[in-house]
Amino acid sequence: MSKIRVGIVGYGNLGRGLEKNIGLNDDMDLVAIFTRRDPESIKSSVKVESFDNIKSYKDKIDLMFLCGGSFKDLREQTCLVNKDFNTVDSFDNHGEIPDYFKEVDKSARESGNLSLISTGWDPGLFSLARVLFSSILPKGRTYTFWGKGLSQGHSDALRRLPGVIDGVQYTIPLESSINQVKSGSMPDLDPKTMHERVCYVVAKKEDQARIKEEIVNMPNYFQGYKTQVNFISQEEFNKNHKGMPHGGRVIHSGLTGNNLQTMTLSLDLGSNPEFTSAVLIAFGRGLVKMSRDGKSGAISVYDIPLGYLARESMEDLRKNYL
Amino acid sequence: MSKIRVGIVGYGNLGRGLEKNIGLNDDMDLVAIFTRRDPESIKSSVKVESFDNIKSYKDKIDLMFLCGGSFKDLREQTCLVNKDFNTVDSFDNHGEIPDYFKEVDKSARESGNLSLISTGWDPGLFSLARVLFSSILPKGRTYTFWGKGLSQGHSDALRRLPGVIDGVQYTIPLESSINQVKSGSMPDLDPKTMHERVCYVVAKKEDQARIKEEIVNMPNYFQGYKTQVNFISQEEFNKNHKGMPHGGRVIHSGLTGNNLQTMTLSLDLGSNPEFTSAVLIAFGRGLVKMSRDGKSGAISVYDIPLGYLARESMEDLRKNYL
Repeated sequence: MSKIRVGIVGYGNLGRGLEKNIGLNDDMDLVAIFTRRDPESIKSSVKVESFDNIKSYKDKIDLMFLCGGSFKDLREQTCLVNKDFNTVDSFDNHGEIPDYFKEVDKSARESGNLSLISTGWDPGLFSLARVLFSSILPKGRTYTFWGKGLSQGHSDALRRLPGVIDGVQYTIPLESSINQVKSGSMPDLDPKTMHERVCYVVAKKEDQARIKEEIVNMPNYFQGYKTQVNFISQEEFNKNHKGMPHGGRVIHSGLTGNNLQTMTLSLDLGSNPEFTSAVLIAFGRGLVKMSRDGKSGAISVYDIPLGYLARESMEDLRKNYL
Repeated sequence: MSKIRVGIVGYGNLGRGLEKNIGLNDDMDLVAIFTRRDPESIKSSVKVESFDNIKSYKDKIDLMFLCGGSFKDLREQTCLVNKDFNTVDSFDNHGEIPDYFKEVDKSARESGNLSLISTGWDPGLFSLARVLFSSILPKGRTYTFWGKGLSQGHSDALRRLPGVIDGVQYTIPLESSINQVKSGSMPDLDPKTMHERVCYVVAKKEDQARIKEEIVNMPNYFQGYKTQVNFISQEEFNKNHKGMPHGGRVIHSGLTGNNLQTMTLSLDLGSNPEFTSAVLIAFGRGLVKMSRDGKSGAISVYDIPLGYLARESMEDLRKNYL
């Protein structure tokens, strides 16, 4: 198979993660990065182009990684880009997935390209685990725990409070809930009883009591959750809270006869955007193989045979991994 | 989709597990069980037929689950059965997989049927995890731990020793090895340093010292392993050691940039044969869908899109699980 020529659309955390990770896959060449900002403002060893020039790469790139946000960017960009290229994205606005899929599918079918939507670890790997596990053990229940991990949205929310100099929020699954699930008792749980929210905040002494009250009572974000607020120095913040760790697990317990069977997929991630980009790369490889098979339209992770993600041939996979 | 009509070939632990589990899947009908023993000797609510009559079911069954052993049964049966039926098996003789695949593929292509080989949890789910994980994190290492679980072969071996009234052996992964792997240090390990073997034996007092010596020094089975021998009463044995628990985990640690990322698939199984049969059923469903798509020949777990394993349509999967 000739090398897969790829491009990156959007240069935030995910785009930078892709740029770093593509180099670990010697069957891929990163041709260019496309941005709606001034290309001159981005420092990269790879060619940086204006998004407006993307069409001129039509025969030079096999696959575009779309790194925009789900809220606006992808709804605008995917159906433009897949007129000329295969695409992979990490669209994660769950409620809009059916609509988004339809739009992307229509546009990709017309152009003969293939678009994989909603890839990453959730949606993505966790979505696969939920279906795999419940298909095997239909008489069972599935639980998804997130964390320990940095929540970008909640960190932004607490940083907007007056007097907050710096701050982050981690979502942490409650061990007591995990143990309940592992015991096979199949409890009724909702995210509020499954996770706690732990905040690290830099603020002046005189603001701290008020800030703490405002955090724990913030509707939609913290109210009703078990929330912990820790005030720390800027030095400690810089030392311990500048990374982007994340992770989580999907646990499915089910019965066969009277026997309890439990399946778990766990992720412990040093960097959320770098891991997400690694997932996109593997699925991007699979997508290009399916496109070379002649398939077009929109697909999800459920449509790709997992052997397609590997660099090795099916024959080598059977010999070395089965 | 019309109901999937299935048959079971071979009525040992796995066949019985299938018989029990097929009832949990209301898109499947179990039509008959085929045996080389006297059909009258098997008590089942399902029709039991002689293996010699299997051809007469050609248009009545969509899929045969082959439950024979890898050493002899499957090498003889698969290419006979897939002349008339789609098949799923759990062939687990790793070294012979490439040869076996070729034979099965040739025979299935000639008849236009589809045969899925080497399914279950290892080979099967663990094989999928090894490929998925290393495709995502190519700069990393994969470790497979088995247990805590009952080892049938080792239990048989120790029961053959003179004076042993009853006995079982469990393979247990060493916590110290698991922790080394989880730390991301990517150590060199071999199965002997990753697992210990724990035996529970019923024997007369005067035989115990000799039996213990014979066990720990048994070549190929226990010699060189960390082995623990516990003598217990027949009552305790009957109470605690008559089940067939098993499990294990595949752990893959890899780097993206300087960030350590760890992916784990874990199974905790109350009954090994019942869980294996549940895996066979889900993959059998996927196989029948691929066969209805027009595909024939031999395949492995790497060829099946995981969405095919579910009862739901791809549209419903995207809406409810993605």
